[in-house]
Amino acid sequence: MSVKLEGNIFVTGSNRGIGLELVKQLAGMTGGDTHIYACCREPEGSRAQALREVTTQYSGKISIIKLDVSDEDSVSAAVQAVSKQIGDGGLNLLINNAAIAKPTFPGTLAATSKKHMMEVYETNVGGPFLTAKMFLPLLQKAAGGNSAEMHKGDTMSCRRAAIINISTYISSMEKCSENFHLAQMYAYRTSKAALNMLTCCLAEDLKTHNILVTAIHPGWVRTELGGSKAPLTSQESVLSMLSVMSSLSNKDSGMLLDWQGTTIPW
Amino acid sequence: MSVKLEGNIFVTGSNRGIGLELVKQLAGMTGGDTHIYACCREPEGSRAQALREVTTQYSGKISIIKLDVSDEDSVSAAVQAVSKQIGDGGLNLLINNAAIAKPTFPGTLAATSKKHMMEVYETNVGGPFLTAKMFLPLLQKAAGGNSAEMHKGDTMSCRRAAIINISTYISSMEKCSENFHLAQMYAYRTSKAALNMLTCCLAEDLKTHNILVTAIHPGWVRTELGGSKAPLTSQESVLSMLSVMSSLSNKDSGMLLDWQGTTIPW
Ligand SMILES: NC(=O)c1ccc[n+]([C@@H]2O[C@H](COP(=O)([O-])OP(=O)(O)OC[C@H]3O[C@@H](n4cnc5c(N)ncnc54)[C@H](OP(=O)(O)O)[C@@H]3O)[C@@H](O)[C@H]2O)c1
Ligand SMILES: NC(=O)c1ccc[n+]([C@@H]2O[C@H](COP(=O)([O-])OP(=O)(O)OC[C@H]3O[C@@H](n4cnc5c(N)ncnc54)[C@H](OP(=O)(O)O)[C@@H]3O)[C@@H](O)[C@H]2O)c1
Repeated sequence: MSVKLEGNIFVTGSNRGIGLELVKQLAGMTGGDTHIYACCREPEGSRAQALREVTTQYSGKISIIKLDVSDEDSVSAAVQAVSKQIGDGGLNLLINNAAIAKPTFPGTLAATSKKHMMEVYETNVGGPFLTAKMFLPLLQKAAGGNSAEMHKGDTMSCRRAAIINISTYISSMEKCSENFHLAQMYAYRTSKAALNMLTCCLAEDLKTHNILVTAIHPGWVRTELGGSKAPLTSQESVLSMLSVMSSLSNKDSGMLLDWQGTTIPW
Repeated sequence: MSVKLEGNIFVTGSNRGIGLELVKQLAGMTGGDTHIYACCREPEGSRAQALREVTTQYSGKISIIKLDVSDEDSVSAAVQAVSKQIGDGGLNLLINNAAIAKPTFPGTLAATSKKHMMEVYETNVGGPFLTAKMFLPLLQKAAGGNSAEMHKGDTMSCRRAAIINISTYISSMEKCSENFHLAQMYAYRTSKAALNMLTCCLAEDLKTHNILVTAIHPGWVRTELGGSKAPLTSQESVLSMLSVMSSLSNKDSGMLLDWQGTTIPW
Protein backbone atom coordinates (compact mmCIF):
# COMPACT_ATOMS: atom_id res chain seq x y z
CA MET A 1 0.00 0.00 0.00
CA SER A 2 1.56 3.25 -1.08
CA VAL A 3 0.01 6.35 0.40
CA LYS A 4 0.14 9.47 -1.73
CA LEU A 5 -1.31 12.49 -0.05
CA GLU A 6 0.06 16.00 -0.19
CA GLY A 7 -0.82 19.66 -0.20
CA ASN A 8 -2.77 21.57 2.42
CA ILE A 9 -4.67 19.29 4.77
CA PHE A 10 -7.12 20.34 7.50
CA VAL A 11 -8.10 17.90 10.28
CA THR A 12 -10.75 18.65 12.93
CA GLY A 13 -10.61 17.18 16.44
CA SER A 14 -6.93 16.36 16.20
CA ASN A 15 -5.76 16.63 19.80
CA ARG A 16 -6.50 12.98 20.57
CA GLY A 17 -7.86 9.71 19.21
CA ILE A 18 -8.09 9.15 15.47
CA GLY A 19 -7.61 12.85 14.67
CA LEU A 20 -4.25 13.02 16.46
CA GLU A 21 -3.09 9.86 14.71
CA LEU A 22 -4.16 11.28 11.32
CA VAL A 23 -1.94 14.31 11.94
CA LYS A 24 0.99 12.16 13.12
CA GLN A 25 0.94 9.80 10.16
CA LEU A 26 0.27 12.54 7.62
CA ALA A 27 3.22 14.53 8.98
CA GLY A 28 5.42 11.45 8.88
CA MET A 29 4.63 10.27 5.37
CA THR A 30 4.31 13.47 3.35
CA GLY A 31 6.98 15.68 1.78
CA GLY A 32 7.91 19.32 2.17
CA ASP A 33 5.04 20.53 -0.01
CA THR A 34 2.52 19.42 2.58
CA HIS A 35 1.16 21.52 5.40
CA ILE A 36 -1.21 20.23 8.03
CA TYR A 37 -3.74 22.39 9.85
CA ALA A 38 -4.40 20.45 13.04
CA CYS A 39 -7.44 21.69 14.92
CA CYS A 40 -8.47 21.46 18.52
CA ARG A 41 -10.70 23.33 20.92
CA GLU A 42 -7.97 24.44 23.32
CA PRO A 43 -4.52 24.66 21.72
CA GLU A 44 -2.98 25.83 25.01
CA GLY A 45 -4.82 23.38 27.27
CA SER A 46 -3.59 20.13 28.81
CA ARG A 47 -5.69 18.07 26.41
CA ALA A 48 -3.60 19.38 23.50
CA GLN A 49 -0.24 18.39 25.04
CA ALA A 50 0.29 15.41 22.72
CA LEU A 51 -0.60 17.47 19.65
CA ARG A 52 1.84 20.21 20.66
CA GLU A 53 4.56 17.57 20.94
CA VAL A 54 3.88 16.25 17.43
CA THR A 55 3.97 19.81 16.15
CA THR A 56 7.37 20.34 17.70
CA GLN A 57 8.63 17.04 16.30
CA TYR A 58 7.67 18.00 12.73
CA SER A 59 8.75 21.59 13.06
CA GLY A 60 7.16 23.92 10.48
CA LYS A 61 4.91 21.26 8.98
CA ILE A 62 1.92 21.53 11.30
CA SER A 63 -0.07 24.57 12.38
CA ILE A 64 -2.38 24.19 15.33
CA ILE A 65 -5.69 25.96 14.71
CA LYS A 66 -8.18 26.71 17.46
CA LEU A 67 -11.54 25.29 16.42
CA ASP A 68 -14.77 24.31 18.08
CA VAL A 69 -16.85 22.95 15.21
CA SER A 70 -20.10 23.52 17.07
CA ASP A 71 -19.43 27.27 17.17
CA GLU A 72 -20.00 29.20 13.95
CA ASP A 73 -17.74 32.09 14.99
CA SER A 74 -14.98 29.63 15.75
CA VAL A 75 -15.25 28.05 12.28
CA SER A 76 -15.20 31.50 10.76
CA ALA A 77 -12.06 32.44 12.73
CA ALA A 78 -10.38 29.18 11.65
CA VAL A 79 -11.13 29.95 8.00
CA GLN A 80 -9.54 33.37 8.44
CA ALA A 81 -6.47 31.96 10.16
CA VAL A 82 -5.96 29.32 7.46
CA SER A 83 -6.64 31.77 4.61
CA LYS A 84 -3.88 34.07 5.83
CA GLN A 85 -1.36 31.27 5.83
CA ILE A 86 -2.35 28.97 3.00
CA GLY A 87 -1.29 30.85 -0.10
CA ASP A 88 -2.46 30.29 -3.66
CA GLY A 89 -2.69 26.51 -3.52
CA GLY A 90 -5.92 26.50 -1.57
CA LEU A 91 -7.13 23.64 0.60
CA ASN A 92 -6.67 20.15 -0.81
CA LEU A 93 -8.14 17.98 1.90
CA LEU A 94 -10.67 18.74 4.65
CA ILE A 95 -11.10 15.87 7.10
CA ASN A 96 -14.18 16.24 9.31
CA ASN A 97 -13.14 13.97 12.15
CA ALA A 98 -14.37 15.73 15.32
CA ALA A 99 -17.47 14.14 16.80
CA ILE A 100 -19.18 13.30 20.05
CA ALA A 101 -21.38 10.47 21.27
CA LYS A 102 -23.87 11.25 24.02
CA PRO A 103 -25.25 9.86 26.28
CA THR A 104 -22.64 7.26 27.18
CA PHE A 105 -22.84 3.72 25.82
CA PRO A 106 -25.27 2.02 25.22
CA GLY A 107 -27.41 5.14 24.70
CA THR A 108 -30.88 3.66 25.12
CA LEU A 109 -34.08 5.56 24.33
CA ALA A 110 -34.75 6.07 28.03
CA ALA A 111 -31.25 7.46 28.59
CA THR A 112 -31.36 9.79 25.60
CA SER A 113 -32.78 13.28 25.98
CA LYS A 114 -33.75 15.81 23.37
CA LYS A 115 -30.75 17.83 24.56
CA HIS A 116 -28.49 14.89 23.63
CA MET A 117 -30.13 14.67 20.21
CA MET A 118 -29.54 18.36 19.54
CA GLU A 119 -25.99 18.57 20.94
CA VAL A 120 -24.77 15.53 19.04
CA TYR A 121 -26.33 16.81 15.81
CA GLU A 122 -24.79 20.24 16.32
CA THR A 123 -21.27 18.81 16.54
CA ASN A 124 -21.51 15.80 14.22
CA VAL A 125 -23.54 17.39 11.41
CA GLY A 126 -23.57 21.13 12.08
CA GLY A 127 -19.75 21.02 12.34
CA PRO A 128 -19.08 19.32 8.97
CA PHE A 129 -21.81 21.43 7.38
CA LEU A 130 -20.12 24.66 8.50
CA THR A 131 -16.57 23.62 7.63
CA ALA A 132 -17.66 22.41 4.17
CA LYS A 133 -19.61 25.58 3.50
CA MET A 134 -17.02 27.99 4.83
CA PHE A 135 -13.91 26.29 3.43
CA LEU A 136 -15.52 25.89 0.02
CA PRO A 137 -13.73 28.90 -1.54
CA LEU A 138 -10.37 27.45 -0.45
CA LEU A 139 -11.30 23.99 -1.72
CA GLN A 140 -12.40 25.47 -5.04
CA LYS A 141 -9.08 27.25 -5.30
CA ALA A 142 -7.29 23.93 -4.91
CA ALA A 143 -9.67 22.16 -7.30
CA GLY A 144 -9.04 24.79 -9.97
CA GLY A 145 -5.39 23.85 -10.23
CA ASN A 146 -4.19 20.98 -12.40
CA SER A 147 -3.38 17.74 -10.67
CA ALA A 148 -0.62 15.82 -12.38
CA GLU A 149 -1.36 12.30 -11.30
CA MET A 150 -4.97 11.76 -12.33
CA HIS A 151 -5.94 8.47 -13.91
CA LYS A 152 -7.67 8.70 -17.25
CA GLY A 153 -11.14 10.17 -16.91
CA ASP A 154 -10.73 10.84 -13.22
CA THR A 155 -11.03 14.44 -12.22
CA MET A 156 -11.21 14.02 -8.47
CA SER A 157 -8.81 12.92 -5.74
CA CYS A 158 -7.76 13.71 -2.18
CA ARG A 159 -4.64 15.34 -3.64
CA ARG A 160 -6.68 17.74 -5.72
CA ALA A 161 -9.62 18.76 -3.49
CA ALA A 162 -11.69 16.60 -1.18
CA ILE A 163 -13.89 16.50 1.88
CA ILE A 164 -13.69 13.34 3.98
CA ASN A 165 -16.43 12.95 6.57
CA ILE A 166 -15.60 10.42 9.26
CA SER A 167 -18.81 8.44 9.71
CA THR A 168 -19.46 5.04 11.25
CA TYR A 169 -20.71 1.56 10.43
CA ILE A 170 -23.64 2.08 12.77
CA SER A 171 -24.87 4.90 10.52
CA SER A 172 -26.07 2.20 8.13
CA MET A 173 -29.84 1.68 8.18
CA GLU A 174 -29.45 -1.48 6.14
CA LYS A 175 -27.34 -2.95 8.97
CA CYS A 176 -29.31 -1.49 11.88
CA SER A 177 -31.23 -4.64 12.71
CA GLU A 178 -27.92 -6.55 12.95
CA ASN A 179 -26.16 -4.21 15.35
CA PHE A 180 -28.78 -2.09 17.11
CA HIS A 181 -28.67 -4.08 20.33
CA LEU A 182 -24.87 -3.89 20.50
CA ALA A 183 -24.91 -0.10 20.61
CA GLN A 184 -28.28 1.63 20.54
CA MET A 185 -26.82 5.16 20.53
CA TYR A 186 -29.95 6.90 19.21
CA ALA A 187 -28.46 10.40 19.11
CA TYR A 188 -25.17 9.30 17.53
CA ARG A 189 -26.73 7.02 14.90
CA THR A 190 -29.28 9.60 13.75
CA SER A 191 -26.54 12.26 13.52
CA LYS A 192 -24.27 10.03 11.45
CA ALA A 193 -27.09 9.00 9.10
CA ALA A 194 -27.66 12.72 8.56
CA LEU A 195 -23.90 13.18 8.00
CA ASN A 196 -24.09 10.53 5.30
CA MET A 197 -26.89 12.47 3.59
CA LEU A 198 -24.79 15.65 3.87
CA THR A 199 -22.00 13.69 2.17
CA CYS A 200 -24.31 12.66 -0.69
CA CYS A 201 -25.60 16.22 -1.14
CA LEU A 202 -22.13 17.78 -1.13
CA ALA A 203 -20.80 15.10 -3.50
CA GLU A 204 -23.56 15.84 -6.01
CA ASP A 205 -23.30 19.58 -5.51
CA LEU A 206 -19.52 19.86 -5.80
CA LYS A 207 -18.76 17.34 -8.51
CA THR A 208 -18.83 20.00 -11.21
CA HIS A 209 -16.13 21.75 -9.15
CA ASN A 210 -14.06 18.53 -9.13
CA ILE A 211 -14.29 18.31 -5.36
CA LEU A 212 -14.56 14.75 -4.06
CA VAL A 213 -16.74 14.07 -1.00
CA THR A 214 -16.65 10.68 0.70
CA ALA A 215 -17.66 9.28 4.09
CA ILE A 216 -15.31 6.82 5.79
CA HIS A 217 -15.89 4.47 8.72
CA PRO A 218 -12.60 4.12 10.64
CA GLY A 219 -13.40 0.69 12.07
CA TRP A 220 -13.99 0.06 15.76
CA VAL A 221 -10.99 1.81 17.27
CA ARG A 222 -9.55 2.02 20.81
CA THR A 223 -10.06 5.71 21.66
CA GLU A 224 -12.08 7.53 24.31
CA LEU A 225 -15.08 7.24 22.01
CA GLY A 226 -14.45 3.66 20.87
CA GLY A 227 -13.65 2.32 24.34
CA SER A 228 -11.07 -0.21 25.47
CA LYS A 229 -12.71 -3.29 23.92
CA ALA A 230 -12.27 -2.10 20.34
CA PRO A 231 -10.13 -4.43 18.20
CA LEU A 232 -8.21 -1.77 16.22
CA THR A 233 -5.55 0.67 17.37
CA SER A 234 -5.77 4.18 15.96
CA GLN A 235 -2.42 3.48 14.22
CA GLU A 236 -3.89 0.53 12.31
CA SER A 237 -7.12 2.36 11.46
CA VAL A 238 -5.39 5.50 10.25
CA LEU A 239 -2.72 3.70 8.21
CA SER A 240 -5.47 1.88 6.37
CA MET A 241 -7.77 4.91 6.01
CA LEU A 242 -4.96 7.04 4.55
CA SER A 243 -4.28 4.34 1.99
CA VAL A 244 -7.99 4.34 1.07
CA MET A 245 -8.08 8.15 0.92
CA SER A 246 -5.09 8.28 -1.38
CA SER A 247 -6.80 5.92 -3.82
CA LEU A 248 -10.19 7.65 -3.97
CA SER A 249 -11.44 8.84 -7.33
CA ASN A 250 -14.66 9.96 -9.06
CA LYS A 251 -16.53 6.69 -8.47
CA ASP A 252 -16.07 7.00 -4.69
CA SER A 253 -17.59 10.45 -4.31
CA GLY A 254 -20.89 10.26 -2.43
CA MET A 255 -20.11 6.81 -0.99
CA LEU A 256 -19.62 5.40 2.51
CA LEU A 257 -16.51 3.20 2.67
CA ASP A 258 -14.87 1.44 5.58
CA TRP A 259 -11.19 1.78 6.56
CA GLN A 260 -10.33 -1.00 4.13
CA GLY A 261 -12.15 0.58 1.22
CA THR A 262 -15.22 -1.69 1.30
CA THR A 263 -18.54 0.00 0.52
CA ILE A 264 -21.05 0.08 3.37
CA PRO A 265 -24.71 0.16 2.25
CA TRP A 266 -26.78 3.12 3.44
CA MET B 1 -58.70 -1.14 -1.26
CA SER B 2 -60.37 -1.60 2.08
CA VAL B 3 -59.00 0.54 4.86
CA LYS B 4 -59.20 -0.90 8.34
CA LEU B 5 -57.94 1.42 11.00
CA GLU B 6 -59.47 1.95 14.41
CA GLY B 7 -58.76 2.75 18.03
CA ASN B 8 -57.00 5.79 19.41
CA ILE B 9 -55.08 7.69 16.78
CA PHE B 10 -52.79 10.70 17.31
CA VAL B 11 -51.78 12.94 14.39
CA THR B 12 -49.27 15.80 14.66
CA GLY B 13 -49.47 18.93 12.50
CA SER B 14 -53.11 18.35 11.61
CA ASN B 15 -54.41 21.87 11.08
CA ARG B 16 -53.52 21.90 7.37
CA GLY B 17 -51.98 19.96 4.51
CA ILE B 18 -51.58 16.21 4.76
CA GLY B 19 -52.20 16.17 8.52
CA LEU B 20 -55.63 17.80 8.19
CA GLU B 21 -56.58 15.38 5.42
CA LEU B 22 -55.46 12.42 7.55
CA VAL B 23 -57.83 13.55 10.30
CA LYS B 24 -60.71 14.13 7.85
CA GLN B 25 -60.44 10.75 6.15
CA LEU B 26 -59.82 8.85 9.39
CA ALA B 27 -62.89 10.47 10.94
CA GLY B 28 -64.95 9.63 7.87
CA MET B 29 -63.98 5.99 7.49
CA THR B 30 -63.73 4.69 11.06
CA GLY B 31 -66.44 3.51 13.43
CA GLY B 32 -67.54 4.57 16.89
CA ASP B 33 -64.65 2.83 18.62
CA THR B 34 -62.18 5.26 17.08
CA HIS B 35 -61.01 8.51 18.60
CA ILE B 36 -58.70 10.92 16.88
CA TYR B 37 -56.34 13.26 18.70
CA ALA B 38 -55.70 15.99 16.16
CA CYS B 39 -52.78 18.22 17.10
CA CYS B 40 -51.88 21.75 16.17
CA ARG B 41 -49.82 24.59 17.57
CA GLU B 42 -52.69 27.04 18.06
CA PRO B 43 -56.08 25.36 18.48
CA GLU B 44 -57.78 28.74 18.89
CA GLY B 45 -55.92 30.54 16.08
CA SER B 46 -57.05 31.30 12.55
CA ARG B 47 -54.78 28.62 11.12
CA ALA B 48 -56.82 25.96 12.93
CA GLN B 49 -60.20 27.12 11.51
CA ALA B 50 -60.50 24.20 9.05
CA LEU B 51 -59.60 21.67 11.74
CA ARG B 52 -62.19 23.12 14.11
CA GLU B 53 -64.80 22.73 11.38
CA VAL B 54 -63.93 19.05 10.84
CA THR B 55 -64.15 18.52 14.58
CA THR B 56 -67.62 20.01 14.65
CA GLN B 57 -68.68 17.90 11.67
CA TYR B 58 -67.63 14.65 13.40
CA SER B 59 -68.87 15.67 16.80
CA GLY B 60 -67.31 13.71 19.66
CA LYS B 61 -64.90 11.79 17.47
CA ILE B 62 -62.00 14.24 17.35
CA SER B 63 -60.18 16.01 20.18
CA ILE B 64 -57.98 18.93 19.27
CA ILE B 65 -54.73 18.83 21.25
CA LYS B 66 -52.37 21.78 21.51
CA LEU B 67 -48.91 20.63 20.46
CA ASP B 68 -45.70 22.20 19.28
CA VAL B 69 -43.45 19.19 18.62
CA SER B 70 -40.30 21.28 18.91
CA ASP B 71 -41.14 22.13 22.53
CA GLU B 72 -40.54 19.39 25.11
CA ASP B 73 -42.98 20.91 27.62
CA SER B 74 -45.66 21.03 24.96
CA VAL B 75 -45.19 17.32 24.15
CA SER B 76 -45.34 16.54 27.84
CA ALA B 77 -48.58 18.52 28.22
CA ALA B 78 -50.07 16.72 25.20
CA VAL B 79 -49.23 13.34 26.75
CA GLN B 80 -50.99 14.41 29.93
CA ALA B 81 -54.05 15.66 28.07
CA VAL B 82 -54.33 12.45 26.05
CA SER B 83 -53.67 10.21 29.07
CA LYS B 84 -56.57 11.75 30.96
CA GLN B 85 -58.97 11.06 28.15
CA ILE B 86 -57.76 7.86 26.51
CA GLY B 87 -58.81 5.17 28.95
CA ASP B 88 -57.50 1.62 29.18
CA GLY B 89 -57.08 0.98 25.48
CA GLY B 90 -53.93 3.04 25.18
CA LEU B 91 -52.68 4.64 21.97
CA ASN B 92 -52.92 2.52 18.84
CA LEU B 93 -51.44 4.77 16.22
CA LEU B 94 -49.05 7.72 16.47
CA ILE B 95 -48.58 9.55 13.17
CA ASN B 96 -45.61 11.93 13.19
CA ASN B 97 -46.65 14.18 10.34
CA ALA B 98 -45.62 17.70 11.44
CA ALA B 99 -42.49 18.95 9.70
CA ILE B 100 -40.87 22.05 8.27
CA ALA B 101 -38.58 22.74 5.33
CA LYS B 102 -36.22 25.71 5.61
CA PRO B 103 -34.87 27.69 3.82
CA THR B 104 -37.40 27.91 1.00
CA PHE B 105 -36.98 25.86 -2.17
CA PRO B 106 -34.47 25.04 -3.62
CA GLY B 107 -32.44 25.25 -0.37
CA THR B 108 -28.92 25.53 -1.78
CA LEU B 109 -25.80 25.28 0.35
CA ALA B 110 -25.28 29.04 0.11
CA ALA B 111 -28.87 29.74 1.22
CA THR B 112 -28.75 27.28 4.12
CA SER B 113 -27.50 28.45 7.51
CA LYS B 114 -26.54 26.44 10.56
CA LYS B 115 -29.68 27.90 12.18
CA HIS B 116 -31.77 26.28 9.41
CA MET B 117 -29.99 22.97 9.97
CA MET B 118 -30.73 23.05 13.69
CA GLU B 119 -34.33 24.29 13.48
CA VAL B 120 -35.34 21.77 10.86
CA TYR B 121 -33.72 18.95 12.84
CA GLU B 122 -35.44 20.07 16.03
CA THR B 123 -38.91 19.84 14.45
CA ASN B 124 -38.45 16.96 12.00
CA VAL B 125 -36.39 14.64 14.22
CA GLY B 126 -36.55 16.07 17.75
CA GLY B 127 -40.36 16.11 17.45
CA PRO B 128 -40.85 12.45 16.44
CA PHE B 129 -38.14 11.46 18.96
CA LEU B 130 -40.02 13.14 21.81
CA THR B 131 -43.48 11.92 20.84
CA ALA B 132 -42.21 8.33 20.42
CA LYS B 133 -40.39 8.42 23.73
CA MET B 134 -43.14 10.11 25.71
CA PHE B 135 -46.12 8.24 24.23
CA LEU B 136 -44.36 4.89 24.61
CA PRO B 137 -46.25 3.92 27.80
CA LEU B 138 -49.57 4.53 26.03
CA LEU B 139 -48.43 2.61 22.95
CA GLN B 140 -47.29 -0.26 25.14
CA LYS B 141 -50.67 -0.30 26.81
CA ALA B 142 -52.33 -0.71 23.41
CA ALA B 143 -49.78 -3.30 22.27
CA GLY B 144 -50.42 -5.38 25.37
CA GLY B 145 -54.02 -6.00 24.36
CA ASN B 146 -55.02 -8.75 21.97
CA SER B 147 -55.75 -7.76 18.43
CA ALA B 148 -58.38 -9.94 16.80
CA GLU B 149 -57.50 -9.59 13.17
CA MET B 150 -53.83 -10.54 12.98
CA HIS B 151 -52.67 -12.73 10.16
CA LYS B 152 -50.83 -15.89 11.13
CA GLY B 153 -47.43 -15.09 12.59
CA ASP B 154 -47.99 -11.37 12.49
CA THR B 155 -47.90 -9.63 15.83
CA MET B 156 -47.81 -6.04 14.62
CA SER B 157 -50.27 -3.72 12.89
CA CYS B 158 -51.49 -0.12 12.87
CA ARG B 159 -54.64 -1.35 14.64
CA ARG B 160 -52.62 -2.79 17.52
CA ALA B 161 -49.82 -0.26 18.15
CA ALA B 162 -47.73 1.64 15.65
CA ILE B 163 -45.64 4.72 14.98
CA ILE B 164 -45.78 6.10 11.45
CA ASN B 165 -43.11 8.68 10.63
CA ILE B 166 -43.92 10.75 7.56
CA SER B 167 -40.64 10.91 5.65
CA THR B 168 -39.89 11.74 2.03
CA TYR B 169 -38.46 10.26 -1.14
CA ILE B 170 -35.65 12.80 -1.02
CA SER B 171 -34.46 11.24 2.25
CA SER B 172 -33.06 8.40 0.15
CA MET B 173 -29.26 8.52 -0.23
CA GLU B 174 -29.44 5.86 -2.91
CA LYS B 175 -31.59 8.21 -5.01
CA CYS B 176 -29.80 11.46 -4.11
CA SER B 177 -27.76 11.71 -7.30
CA GLU B 178 -30.98 11.40 -9.33
CA ASN B 179 -32.95 14.13 -7.62
CA PHE B 180 -30.49 16.42 -5.81
CA HIS B 181 -30.62 19.15 -8.43
CA LEU B 182 -34.43 19.18 -8.43
CA ALA B 183 -34.56 20.07 -4.73
CA GLN B 184 -31.28 20.52 -2.91
CA MET B 185 -32.90 21.16 0.49
CA TYR B 186 -29.81 20.37 2.57
CA ALA B 187 -31.44 20.94 5.96
CA TYR B 188 -34.62 19.02 5.10
CA ARG B 189 -32.85 16.05 3.48
CA THR B 190 -30.39 15.58 6.34
CA SER B 191 -33.23 15.77 8.87
CA LYS B 192 -35.34 13.19 7.04
CA ALA B 193 -32.38 10.80 6.64
CA ALA B 194 -31.96 11.06 10.41
CA LEU B 195 -35.71 10.44 10.83
CA ASN B 196 -35.31 7.26 8.80
CA MET B 197 -32.55 6.12 11.16
CA LEU B 198 -34.78 6.95 14.13
CA THR B 199 -37.43 4.77 12.47
CA CYS B 200 -34.97 1.87 12.14
CA CYS B 201 -33.82 2.21 15.76
CA LEU B 202 -37.35 2.39 17.15
CA ALA B 203 -38.48 -0.53 14.98
CA GLU B 204 -35.66 -2.71 16.34
CA ASP B 205 -36.11 -1.47 19.89
CA LEU B 206 -39.89 -1.86 20.07
CA LYS B 207 -40.44 -5.07 18.14
CA THR B 208 -40.39 -7.15 21.31
CA HIS B 209 -43.23 -4.90 22.50
CA ASN B 210 -45.15 -5.62 19.26
CA ILE B 211 -45.05 -1.98 18.27
CA LEU B 212 -44.67 -1.43 14.54
CA VAL B 213 -42.56 1.52 13.32
CA THR B 214 -42.58 2.48 9.64
CA ALA B 215 -41.62 5.55 7.61
CA ILE B 216 -43.93 6.59 4.76
CA HIS B 217 -43.34 8.99 1.88
CA PRO B 218 -46.68 10.65 1.00
CA GLY B 219 -45.77 11.38 -2.62
CA TRP B 220 -45.28 14.87 -3.98
CA VAL B 221 -48.42 16.58 -2.70
CA ARG B 222 -49.99 20.03 -3.28
CA THR B 223 -49.68 21.65 0.17
CA GLU B 224 -47.84 24.70 1.47
CA LEU B 225 -44.75 22.51 1.78
CA GLY B 226 -45.15 20.63 -1.51
CA GLY B 227 -46.03 23.71 -3.57
CA SER B 228 -48.54 24.20 -6.38
CA LYS B 229 -46.71 22.11 -9.00
CA ALA B 230 -47.08 18.83 -7.11
CA PRO B 231 -49.04 16.17 -9.02
CA LEU B 232 -50.99 14.69 -6.08
CA THR B 233 -53.80 16.20 -4.03
CA SER B 234 -53.70 15.55 -0.30
CA GLN B 235 -56.94 13.56 -0.75
CA GLU B 236 -55.27 11.15 -3.18
CA SER B 237 -52.11 10.84 -1.10
CA VAL B 238 -53.93 10.23 2.18
CA LEU B 239 -56.43 7.73 0.73
CA SER B 240 -53.55 5.68 -0.55
CA MET B 241 -51.38 6.06 2.57
CA LEU B 242 -54.23 4.95 4.85
CA SER B 243 -54.68 1.87 2.72
CA VAL B 244 -50.95 1.14 3.05
CA MET B 245 -51.03 1.78 6.81
CA SER B 246 -53.93 -0.58 7.31
CA SER B 247 -52.04 -3.38 5.57
CA LEU B 248 -48.72 -3.02 7.42
CA SER B 249 -47.41 -6.00 9.34
CA ASN B 250 -44.18 -7.30 10.90
CA LYS B 251 -42.20 -7.33 7.66
CA ASP B 252 -42.80 -3.59 7.15
CA SER B 253 -41.45 -2.44 10.50
CA GLY B 254 -38.21 -0.50 10.05
CA MET B 255 -38.88 0.19 6.35
CA LEU B 256 -39.43 3.28 4.21
CA LEU B 257 -42.45 2.84 1.92
CA ASP B 258 -44.12 5.26 -0.47
CA TRP B 259 -47.84 6.12 -0.47
CA GLN B 260 -48.48 3.12 -2.72
CA GLY B 261 -46.62 0.69 -0.51
CA THR B 262 -43.47 0.43 -2.63
CA THR B 263 -40.21 0.17 -0.69
CA ILE B 264 -37.80 3.09 -1.11
CA PRO B 265 -34.12 2.17 -0.67
CA TRP B 266 -32.22 4.04 2.05
N1 LIG C 1 -13.44 5.09 17.84
C1 LIG C 1 -14.27 4.37 17.13
O1 LIG C 1 -14.44 3.14 17.33
C2 LIG C 1 -15.07 5.02 16.03
C3 LIG C 1 -15.93 4.20 15.29
C4 LIG C 1 -16.66 4.77 14.26
C5 LIG C 1 -16.52 6.11 13.98
N2 LIG C 1 -15.69 6.89 14.73
C6 LIG C 1 -15.57 8.31 14.37
O2 LIG C 1 -14.21 8.67 14.29
C7 LIG C 1 -14.06 10.07 14.60
C8 LIG C 1 -12.99 10.26 15.66
O3 LIG C 1 -13.41 9.56 16.81
P1 LIG C 1 -12.41 9.14 17.98
O4 LIG C 1 -12.67 7.72 18.28
O5 LIG C 1 -11.04 9.59 17.69
O6 LIG C 1 -13.07 10.03 19.17
P2 LIG C 1 -12.40 10.71 20.44
O7 LIG C 1 -11.21 9.95 20.86
O8 LIG C 1 -13.51 10.90 21.43
O9 LIG C 1 -11.93 12.14 19.88
C9 LIG C 1 -12.90 13.05 19.46
C10 LIG C 1 -12.20 14.29 18.99
O10 LIG C 1 -13.18 15.22 18.55
C11 LIG C 1 -12.98 16.44 19.22
N3 LIG C 1 -14.20 17.20 19.36
C12 LIG C 1 -15.37 16.84 19.95
N4 LIG C 1 -16.25 17.83 19.89
C13 LIG C 1 -15.64 18.86 19.24
C14 LIG C 1 -16.03 20.16 18.86
N5 LIG C 1 -17.26 20.65 19.15
N6 LIG C 1 -15.16 20.93 18.19
C15 LIG C 1 -13.93 20.47 17.89
N7 LIG C 1 -13.49 19.25 18.23
C16 LIG C 1 -14.34 18.46 18.91
C17 LIG C 1 -12.38 16.06 20.56
O11 LIG C 1 -11.76 17.19 21.16
P3 LIG C 1 -11.75 17.44 22.79
O12 LIG C 1 -10.54 16.76 23.31
O13 LIG C 1 -11.71 18.94 22.89
O14 LIG C 1 -13.03 16.85 23.34
C18 LIG C 1 -11.40 14.99 20.10
O15 LIG C 1 -10.27 15.59 19.53
C19 LIG C 1 -15.44 10.55 15.02
O16 LIG C 1 -16.08 11.15 13.91
C20 LIG C 1 -16.16 9.27 15.39
O17 LIG C 1 -17.56 9.38 15.24
C21 LIG C 1 -14.96 6.38 15.76
N1 LIG D 1 -46.15 17.92 0.49
C1 LIG D 1 -45.25 17.11 -0.04
O1 LIG D 1 -45.05 17.07 -1.27
C2 LIG D 1 -44.45 16.22 0.86
C3 LIG D 1 -43.52 15.35 0.23
C4 LIG D 1 -42.79 14.49 1.03
C5 LIG D 1 -42.99 14.50 2.40
N2 LIG D 1 -43.88 15.36 2.98
C6 LIG D 1 -44.05 15.30 4.43
O2 LIG D 1 -45.41 15.23 4.75
C7 LIG D 1 -45.63 15.80 6.05
C8 LIG D 1 -46.74 16.83 5.98
O3 LIG D 1 -46.34 17.83 5.06
P1 LIG D 1 -47.37 18.85 4.38
O4 LIG D 1 -47.04 18.86 2.93
O5 LIG D 1 -48.74 18.58 4.84
O6 LIG D 1 -46.79 20.23 5.01
P2 LIG D 1 -47.54 21.58 5.38
O7 LIG D 1 -48.72 21.78 4.52
O8 LIG D 1 -46.48 22.62 5.40
O9 LIG D 1 -48.05 21.31 6.88
C9 LIG D 1 -47.11 21.13 7.90
C10 LIG D 1 -47.87 20.89 9.18
O10 LIG D 1 -46.89 20.68 10.23
C11 LIG D 1 -47.18 21.60 11.26
N3 LIG D 1 -45.98 21.95 12.03
C12 LIG D 1 -44.83 22.51 11.59
N4 LIG D 1 -43.98 22.69 12.62
C13 LIG D 1 -44.62 22.24 13.74
C14 LIG D 1 -44.28 22.15 15.10
N5 LIG D 1 -43.08 22.58 15.57
N6 LIG D 1 -45.17 21.62 15.96
C15 LIG D 1 -46.36 21.17 15.52
N7 LIG D 1 -46.76 21.24 14.25
C16 LIG D 1 -45.90 21.77 13.37
C17 LIG D 1 -47.82 22.81 10.60
O11 LIG D 1 -48.50 23.60 11.56
P3 LIG D 1 -48.57 25.23 11.47
O12 LIG D 1 -49.77 25.55 10.64
O13 LIG D 1 -48.70 25.64 12.91
O14 LIG D 1 -47.31 25.71 10.83
C18 LIG D 1 -48.71 22.08 9.61
O15 LIG D 1 -49.87 21.62 10.26
C19 LIG D 1 -44.29 16.38 6.48
O16 LIG D 1 -43.65 15.46 7.32
C20 LIG D 1 -43.53 16.51 5.18
O17 LIG D 1 -42.13 16.46 5.38
C21 LIG D 1 -44.60 16.22 2.23
